Amino acid sequence: MIKIVLLGAGNVGHHLSKAFNKSQQIDLVQWYTRDKNKITLSSLDTEIIDDLANIKSADVYIISISDSYIGNLSKELNISNKLVVHTSGSLNFTILNNKNRRGVFYPLQTFSKNKELEISKVPICIESENNQDLMLLEKISKYIDCKSYKINYEERRTLHLAAIFSNNFVNHMFTIAKEILDSKNLDFNILKPLINETVDKIHKLDPENAQTGPAIRNNNEIIINHIKALKKQDHKRLYELMTKLIQDKYGE
Amino acid sequence: MIKIVLLGAGNVGHHLSKAFNKSQQIDLVQWYTRDKNKITLSSLDTEIIDDLANIKSADVYIISISDSYIGNLSKELNISNKLVVHTSGSLNFTILNNKNRRGVFYPLQTFSKNKELEISKVPICIESENNQDLMLLEKISKYIDCKSYKINYEERRTLHLAAIFSNNFVNHMFTIAKEILDSKNLDFNILKPLINETVDKIHKLDPENAQTGPAIRNNNEIIINHIKALKKQDHKRLYELMTKLIQDKYGE
Repeated sequence: MIKIVLLGAGNVGHHLSKAFNKSQQIDLVQWYTRDKNKITLSSLDTEIIDDLANIKSADVYIISISDSYIGNLSKELNISNKLVVHTSGSLNFTILNNKNRRGVFYPLQTFSKNKELEISKVPICIESENNQDLMLLEKISKYIDCKSYKINYEERRTLHLAAIFSNNFVNHMFTIAKEILDSKNLDFNILKPLINETVDKIHKLDPENAQTGPAIRNNNEIIINHIKALKKQDHKRLYELMTKLIQDKYGE
Repeated sequence: MIKIVLLGAGNVGHHLSKAFNKSQQIDLVQWYTRDKNKITLSSLDTEIIDDLANIKSADVYIISISDSYIGNLSKELNISNKLVVHTSGSLNFTILNNKNRRGVFYPLQTFSKNKELEISKVPICIESENNQDLMLLEKISKYIDCKSYKINYEERRTLHLAAIFSNNFVNHMFTIAKEILDSKNLDFNILKPLINETVDKIHKLDPENAQTGPAIRNNNEIIINHIKALKKQDHKRLYELMTKLIQDKYGE
């Protein structure tokens, strides 16, 4: 059994705690959060603490809190020469206090507390100061059915940046599309087959070969009418910029 | 058997011709294209013509060509009092010459010639000048296993605009993400579970409740670093604009 203490009860923390609890090879010894009310999971077989003074011994300490607090929390941890990792896509492990062995356990996925997720579909980017710790992180990934990838800091930052475009910004595109339909009382569900196919395509074609629509066809009349039809200035700007980006990409 | 003449051999035309050929209740009498070389399908049981003079009698004529040529082609058709429809998301049926009965048969989907697609996952937006023709378009949709929706011009334009955001712009987001990874020799495949989950989420949550990432968390340090890391000016502008849009949406 690998003993884990998890620190943080945000979206990532919630999904990791569930995965650790489910695994037969992992003992989630404790789950720390500053505010116990943040924990929406019930029936976990894990002690929940809100005082770092009560922290127990474990093989790994996983810090899954906002980037700006990770450094401080790692200092406050009353342990030394243990493996401490964070789950951030954008920080070096050197943000962690060097009284402990340091590493990263970054799940490349979008987590929402109230959305179930097959944990096996989460690629974990792992990194550590020494090889033995890396093997431990590899094992933890395996024990929760995840694929792990040895990814260094530079690579991880690049992945995180690409993830912003392919998830955060994409989701907001869906939000805008829904807003447009809502304003005319049209049902967002009618768009879902299109959205499914949008993603299905990238499993068969490179995205640059899957592009369709008025921008790549240079259909200026449609483009002008669409920009006119949009109500928000920033949506007009976004339509113009996306159209320019697509036309620059495929223009001679 | 419903007799159909299909005009146009673009992405939509290719997928429709396959669907019509497969249907037991539809006879695809002819497929017209200006340039026979554009047709990449073989083994179709349909006469292919490149001269409108040879056009045969049918129950429906479906024009699936670029918006700007639809009006002219409908004039050149040497038929009258037949049902003629176009497949455009942005044009009124009045663009069609009124020597025939007019309508719309707009498949709300992204089609690429070289990407197979389950046709049953294509919602068809139908509209026509009279009720009997509408029922015929409904039947055709049913005969190729598609769901049809009675959608008027105003609604169709709104759906098309929303489709641009949720498909065209989303696909270009994937293209940018891949470009970012390619530039550091990272494999785009590692992002695919994230992309799948992005879409899986909207079947369970409204997109506005599925938003995650540094913009909604107001994590300015990450945002500034990401904008710095991007190489293209327009990608920086896009990152800034998307971040502003997300923050405006979720800010107080």
